[in-house]
Amino acid sequence: MNTLLLDSDAVDDHARLADVIDAVEGAFGAFERGDTQMPAKSYIDLPRYNGDFRSMPAYLDTGEWDAAGVKWVNVHPDNPADHDLPTVLGTMIYSDPETAFPLAIMDGTTLTMKRTGAAAAVATDQLAVEGASSLGLVGAGVQSYTQLEAISEVRPIEKVVVSDPDEDRVQRFVETYEDRFEVRAGSIAEAGSCDVLSTVTPVEDPIVGLDDVGEHTHVNAIGADAEGKHELTDELLEAARIVIDDHEQCTHSGEINVPYGEGTLTDADIYGEIGELVVGAKAGRTDDTGITVFDSTGLAIQDVAAARVVYENASADGDGYEFGMIDTDQ
Amino acid sequence: MNTLLLDSDAVDDHARLADVIDAVEGAFGAFERGDTQMPAKSYIDLPRYNGDFRSMPAYLDTGEWDAAGVKWVNVHPDNPADHDLPTVLGTMIYSDPETAFPLAIMDGTTLTMKRTGAAAAVATDQLAVEGASSLGLVGAGVQSYTQLEAISEVRPIEKVVVSDPDEDRVQRFVETYEDRFEVRAGSIAEAGSCDVLSTVTPVEDPIVGLDDVGEHTHVNAIGADAEGKHELTDELLEAARIVIDDHEQCTHSGEINVPYGEGTLTDADIYGEIGELVVGAKAGRTDDTGITVFDSTGLAIQDVAAARVVYENASADGDGYEFGMIDTDQ
Repeated sequence: MNTLLLDSDAVDDHARLADVIDAVEGAFGAFERGDTQMPAKSYIDLPRYNGDFRSMPAYLDTGEWDAAGVKWVNVHPDNPADHDLPTVLGTMIYSDPETAFPLAIMDGTTLTMKRTGAAAAVATDQLAVEGASSLGLVGAGVQSYTQLEAISEVRPIEKVVVSDPDEDRVQRFVETYEDRFEVRAGSIAEAGSCDVLSTVTPVEDPIVGLDDVGEHTHVNAIGADAEGKHELTDELLEAARIVIDDHEQCTHSGEINVPYGEGTLTDADIYGEIGELVVGAKAGRTDDTGITVFDSTGLAIQDVAAARVVYENASADGDGYEFGMIDTDQ
Repeated sequence: MNTLLLDSDAVDDHARLADVIDAVEGAFGAFERGDTQMPAKSYIDLPRYNGDFRSMPAYLDTGEWDAAGVKWVNVHPDNPADHDLPTVLGTMIYSDPETAFPLAIMDGTTLTMKRTGAAAAVATDQLAVEGASSLGLVGAGVQSYTQLEAISEVRPIEKVVVSDPDEDRVQRFVETYEDRFEVRAGSIAEAGSCDVLSTVTPVEDPIVGLDDVGEHTHVNAIGADAEGKHELTDELLEAARIVIDDHEQCTHSGEINVPYGEGTLTDADIYGEIGELVVGAKAGRTDDTGITVFDSTGLAIQDVAAARVVYENASADGDGYEFGMIDTDQ
């Protein structure tokens, strides 16, 4: 038996966002119903290299399909300057849960961007105003691209405002999308006053305040992925209806981790988990819902769900490199 | 940058046992010195498929080299009968700790056999009589082959006695080695009276008793890898000097887990960890040492250490398939 090897381009081609959004929505629903197994991420800290590794194994059963796998990923902030390599280098092993055969091994970095965009799209679908046509982006790095592509799958986005102090990044973003959207550079407040805002920066001092957003803006807070990071002011969080992906991860390393740790935000301020909205246990946006915030930390089940999409689509298209890694003769 | 893909044959070729034994010995030493990071294995239990997955990440620094990686492995006992697949299907990702780049991805099943044989060799080198020339094997499955090959690297093995109720297995083993050793089928007591004995069966009721072994036999107890499994009687364990690989793993799922759980064996009955013998903190065999038992459960650092050997040897020989999995352009 062969294992299908899929490189960054193959993952990019086959992680079609409409499919990944469906799969990630299914994963959030399975999580809420208790039909997932997701051990806590295991960390290996390497202070001598200013980096770490994380192992993220998971299994999920949506009722229609089940899937298993592990993502092995890292954060090495010195990589770009010292080694001409990205900070994050993920590898995903996607396995058949019935036999454990490794069906595919793929680039986990592109996969992470896709499933993160998909999570924002699922939350936007639940929490943004129905006809949301404008999207703001704070931060014009790689994640901003997937945010726009995923969110425009669930809302009729026409206008895009991108805010980033790095003008080259902004220009690259504008040039990429100017044929498909009315896209322009703008201030944080101009981005924030859109129907939907996604923040994708690694800041530790909040840069988006209550005055920066509209009365019914839905905010996808994507950037915070470690203790001490947050992009939104306490005032904005306190005014918003907060939806999280996972209580443990969000309170430890998500957008809410700093005010939660300080006691400024408590469990009473958290409206619910995205899975509760997906299964209908809690309502999404209604007419009287004001500002909403989705705190996205990224769950291992999202990676497995997205990997399944990539594997299924690539297999159907006959793409990828077939490798006989494991001798299955007994 | 490319990731080197190594299939079962490549792992078999390049996991040269002399090198793997050195690497695993280095790993045990690093473990004893506290120069390893080895989060607890994460388990995903899948009762509907009668199987499980295990994620085993690790980092180690021997002083001469360091290495990192994760093994993703499973136990699906119905695989042979239902799917014509092995029970265990491992995949190993071997990463550069400095940048986290995945240097190699390889078959983890063959790797596991090699590092397990190497661990027995390290223990045998510490605990068997100096001129040990006879090796007994209880169980003639795949692990028995690596036990003989690894142990004969550290002791001048001439005579081999293999005991297994499955005559076909025994015959296959004998035919494989009859050119290199005086090898024959025998009873458990005939295998056990050798200078070194390795037990590689999955039994839950002990099959090797005190009367089966010689006065100075060193026993490598390899088979027990889950709660409830043990191959040696309590009487034999009580009479032996017991060396373990890791206290937590051995007391939970190693050879000693049953009597330890019942209170028949206590910490006072455990002589030490193999790492303590490797670094010289505790003595190996001396003239007055009688029966010894090494309880081997298998540590994630052994996999990483063995993977490094495979990667280094394969790279030096220009072997393996180079795959550009991750787009490293920033």
